[in-house]
Amino acid sequence: MALTVVGSIAFDAVKTPFGERERMLGGAATHFSLAARFFTEVRPVGPVGDDFVAEQFELLEARGIKTDDIERVAGGKSFFWRGHYDFDLNVAHTDDTQLGVFGEFEPKLSDAAQAADTLFLANIQPDLQRQVRSQCAAGFSGLDSMNLWIDIAKDSLLAAVAEVDCVVLNDAEIRMLTGESNLARAARAVMAMGPRAVVAKQGEYGAALFTKDPATGEESFFALPGFPLEDVRDPTGAGDSFAGGFFGYLDGVDDDLDEANLRRAMGYGTVLASFNVEEFGTERVSRLERAEIDERFEALRRMTQFEGLPAPRD
Amino acid sequence: MALTVVGSIAFDAVKTPFGERERMLGGAATHFSLAARFFTEVRPVGPVGDDFVAEQFELLEARGIKTDDIERVAGGKSFFWRGHYDFDLNVAHTDDTQLGVFGEFEPKLSDAAQAADTLFLANIQPDLQRQVRSQCAAGFSGLDSMNLWIDIAKDSLLAAVAEVDCVVLNDAEIRMLTGESNLARAARAVMAMGPRAVVAKQGEYGAALFTKDPATGEESFFALPGFPLEDVRDPTGAGDSFAGGFFGYLDGVDDDLDEANLRRAMGYGTVLASFNVEEFGTERVSRLERAEIDERFEALRRMTQFEGLPAPRD
Repeated sequence: MALTVVGSIAFDAVKTPFGERERMLGGAATHFSLAARFFTEVRPVGPVGDDFVAEQFELLEARGIKTDDIERVAGGKSFFWRGHYDFDLNVAHTDDTQLGVFGEFEPKLSDAAQAADTLFLANIQPDLQRQVRSQCAAGFSGLDSMNLWIDIAKDSLLAAVAEVDCVVLNDAEIRMLTGESNLARAARAVMAMGPRAVVAKQGEYGAALFTKDPATGEESFFALPGFPLEDVRDPTGAGDSFAGGFFGYLDGVDDDLDEANLRRAMGYGTVLASFNVEEFGTERVSRLERAEIDERFEALRRMTQFEGLPAPRD
Repeated sequence: MALTVVGSIAFDAVKTPFGERERMLGGAATHFSLAARFFTEVRPVGPVGDDFVAEQFELLEARGIKTDDIERVAGGKSFFWRGHYDFDLNVAHTDDTQLGVFGEFEPKLSDAAQAADTLFLANIQPDLQRQVRSQCAAGFSGLDSMNLWIDIAKDSLLAAVAEVDCVVLNDAEIRMLTGESNLARAARAVMAMGPRAVVAKQGEYGAALFTKDPATGEESFFALPGFPLEDVRDPTGAGDSFAGGFFGYLDGVDDDLDEANLRRAMGYGTVLASFNVEEFGTERVSRLERAEIDERFEALRRMTQFEGLPAPRD
């Protein structure tokens, strides 16, 4: 079991009603890796600049993350994102994006990265996602994307979607990508392009999973609420932590991608996302322990189960 | 077991992207009653005008609904609502509201209505809700409301909230009522006013249940997704059908309001709401059969269950 993820490895500046950070470790591949490491060996792929130093490499390596495919570009600057959230923490407001070394990124996967069993293409330009996909024959692959690429690179994104097994998008993006306002129809339209599974992220409302059994064609639906939290400080990276928990767990169970495991993966994704938002950036997930994950996973199960048989009447 | 509901009994004109109706039976108490009738004896309370004729009474009575407390006001006109929905079916746009006989409504419950075991105060002016509550000593009571009353009659609404066991509101309304952006905190703030349960309706995302055990003070959280539908034609009344399924089921199990039954009630509420939106107004729920409800209830259970123990590794 081994998982390769390509995506941004970055620094973020974030302000929310509950505090701010001027410069913290961030990026989709970073959040994803810190979540997935609990379940499998993770290898992030992506470029960083001179400003990404031993401190950052050590933080990742100390948590078992393989950093050989993080490409340090001399004289370059790492991807930087500045954003803020107001009263509604579901909406991120971007104030600045500096691509830095990501602007010239030409992915070249190492032998180890190519040999992964599972591949996740985090939100980057879809042509880059396809380049990475073509270098890695992983048995299970997924991608994330965003409204920007639907707007300016839709054909390329559609081609990338057709090349993966599982698409993870916000529900509004799934509607936008397919032009279908009904989510169940929109998810079916995505699966008609190739993927056998679609995860619709719904922010604080949780996530829904649409699947089609590759053997029988049988369709299934599953949904989980977001884990209820009284203190949400910074939602940045929650979707990437979700994907890290989801694909990390699935890589950990190896070839056994049945419906039961896909549903458990939704549970682990939900749990990792919930820890992510409790503090700023990677702060909470960086010092998370596996026992905390499993405890919250069981709590989530208790919050979503109900009994089928009516109670006896008096 | 007997359930009294007070609320609008009305005619609606509705236009959605999928069709329109110029005049159809509507109103919160109507939708609620048509959903609750599968589980218990329902008695809607409210005024109608001369335009509410034998056809409407017979539709309700033929489905076991007790119409004695529907007050026919000679020379009056029934409550009328005109609205439309665009691409986003979660947002109702009101084009016209005519209170008609509802403007002069002074609730006087019959002996039978007063003797109910369960009382639901659908969305009306909160002083009216309190008048009804004071006439009925039901062992379990609930209320719905809307942003209008939070704006113009907040003190009265807070007093009404303190007098019921269960509050059913949209999540945005719960936040607005309490001034608390975090839903878990907002629900706790509502329970601190008196109710032992808060249902947060979340449109197509489903509904969440916050409870506090009256004996132990133990808090619990439960959530269900909306039932996935490929054809949603008219969401009008979905929240009232949810409440009808929820309170109807609970009245049916009588005094046994434990967590397991509250969760099952959430399931029945979700199922009734899902049938409601499949066609216009009361069309679908009017010809619904109990077997269809139970079949969808079990389907909902299958869509929300997941196993706790990890699969064995290969």
